[in-house]
Amino acid sequence: MRATLLYQAGDVRVEDVPDPKIQQPTDAVIRIVVGCVCGSDLWPYKSAPLTDQPRQMGHEFIGVVEETGPEVKTIRPGDLVVAPFIYADNTCEYCRRGLQTSCPHGGQWGINGVDGGQGEATRVPYADGTLVKLPVAKDSDLLPDLLTLSDVLCTGYHAARTAGVTAGESVAVIGDGAVGLCAVISARLVGAERIILMGRHTQRTDLGREFGATDVVAGRGQDGVNELRELTGGAGTERVLECVGLKDALVQSTGVVRDGGTISRVGAPQYPEVPLGFPEFLRNLTLTGGVAPARAYIEELMPHILSGAIHPGRVFDRTVSLDQVAEGYRLMNDREALKVLVRP
Amino acid sequence: MRATLLYQAGDVRVEDVPDPKIQQPTDAVIRIVVGCVCGSDLWPYKSAPLTDQPRQMGHEFIGVVEETGPEVKTIRPGDLVVAPFIYADNTCEYCRRGLQTSCPHGGQWGINGVDGGQGEATRVPYADGTLVKLPVAKDSDLLPDLLTLSDVLCTGYHAARTAGVTAGESVAVIGDGAVGLCAVISARLVGAERIILMGRHTQRTDLGREFGATDVVAGRGQDGVNELRELTGGAGTERVLECVGLKDALVQSTGVVRDGGTISRVGAPQYPEVPLGFPEFLRNLTLTGGVAPARAYIEELMPHILSGAIHPGRVFDRTVSLDQVAEGYRLMNDREALKVLVRP
Repeated sequence: MRATLLYQAGDVRVEDVPDPKIQQPTDAVIRIVVGCVCGSDLWPYKSAPLTDQPRQMGHEFIGVVEETGPEVKTIRPGDLVVAPFIYADNTCEYCRRGLQTSCPHGGQWGINGVDGGQGEATRVPYADGTLVKLPVAKDSDLLPDLLTLSDVLCTGYHAARTAGVTAGESVAVIGDGAVGLCAVISARLVGAERIILMGRHTQRTDLGREFGATDVVAGRGQDGVNELRELTGGAGTERVLECVGLKDALVQSTGVVRDGGTISRVGAPQYPEVPLGFPEFLRNLTLTGGVAPARAYIEELMPHILSGAIHPGRVFDRTVSLDQVAEGYRLMNDREALKVLVRP
Repeated sequence: MRATLLYQAGDVRVEDVPDPKIQQPTDAVIRIVVGCVCGSDLWPYKSAPLTDQPRQMGHEFIGVVEETGPEVKTIRPGDLVVAPFIYADNTCEYCRRGLQTSCPHGGQWGINGVDGGQGEATRVPYADGTLVKLPVAKDSDLLPDLLTLSDVLCTGYHAARTAGVTAGESVAVIGDGAVGLCAVISARLVGAERIILMGRHTQRTDLGREFGATDVVAGRGQDGVNELRELTGGAGTERVLECVGLKDALVQSTGVVRDGGTISRVGAPQYPEVPLGFPEFLRNLTLTGGVAPARAYIEELMPHILSGAIHPGRVFDRTVSLDQVAEGYRLMNDREALKVLVRP
């Protein structure tokens, strides 16, 4: 089959790889209907060293089940399914607590003999635990919306939930990428009254307003902090959803959060340490969040998509075929596209 | 009056300073009955540069009200009162939320024309908001217990509360100083089933066991982490109360906390940055806590002392007169005393 491989920074190729096969009795093999490129794919795309062991890319996909191992019970060939960006058994203690990202049997797509999500097919470990059936046909117009359940919508929702956003509150969302925009949707879902989106790409922040942002702050660094504080009578917001992953964004978060407030970070940290020393201790700031256990939220969020209440799939502003996937990476890396859908 | 002044590291003197006077209509002047030395006093005691503007020391005290300003309504001359280690108006929005440490009118003892707690008397700003009446006589045996409401008991309790400790849980307490031991008391008060105290001073950890610690881990660094993980079946504890303030203690906290768990820090941070990068992001660790709004907890905790249910005053293992306060600092700094009571 054809799959996307990353050889080094900027060098994405689509090549033949072995067809996936059932290896464990709990496996399924699925044929991918739609995948996409993630903001987090851009970190290795920017910086990976040259290798002759290229990694299969992609961790968000919807597909049709082709074959299941003898112990798979809930998933059947022909089912249309969505996968979270980390597979997991969904039965262990961590999974039962909704922390599937810490499942000892879980893992990442694209390594250890498991295929990536930017290809024609993949083997799915722990298919019963990992996959969630979709009650639509594979040509449904809702597929882009449902694909966001793999990662970005659940990641934005994880930010809102772990930050403890409740009805009537003010929230700052830092970052106008796909995750930031999904954090806006999520803050609104849990009832936030005021949602201040911090980002400087007008096209993206305009979409953020349609998703529910009540205010947009375009200033960066201290300018942005001052602007947000002015909007909130000086105090800042009780909750901040940090959807970037850079240290500057975290510093900005400490600048806009109210004393006693909570910063939830869901952007993969590109820093080893967090600037939370004595001054932030005196302010009783909380840092929470982390990699989103998307699997924990899929069933909860799906009805909002099926009912048409939310349209997170609008973050996809470009579609490419599998053969054009390198162009998809370039478009996102150059910020010509917000998020790119890949149709094998 | 006589008061304790810090001139430089290791140089504590008791000298004459101006008598406190009512300056604002919301002030009170109180005569100190009992004060003490805090672990946090030892940071400047270890490192302060020489100054000819020495600072008055001490921020924990019980006293008798001598005089009140014309706007003071709830506190009367003759009342025995306890003060939290930060004064506050207790009426602003932060105070109403229980975050008196962020009160815009609040401040620290010993600076800006307010006296310290290791002296004969002090002016108390916002007396109605700051002070809490004690329903005992000034010669009560409960005074050492009640004095812990100024700081250490409330600080330990802040750790337990912000960490979200609930009944039946396992908790690790890092640090066997007075705050760590009060965190043990607090974890027990909120119903923790298993309380693992990490400390290596047998006399202190023995007191910790009497306060409710079910296990003691004496190992430091990775040894301590391994020992605690063995005690908890490999997973670590859901909540960690970090009562030291050093970076090593925070690293140890990340080692013993379970994935998805919470570290609450209440030891004043002696570091500018926190080691919470990508690995901890993948584990969904939360960092919370901060300087304790002691005022928020005094009324809630006092009944447990009055009923005899808890005896946090047992952390005081030495008593000195005001003239001996320098010796009190030395005893604590050399770890010959756990916490030193000062009777002017």
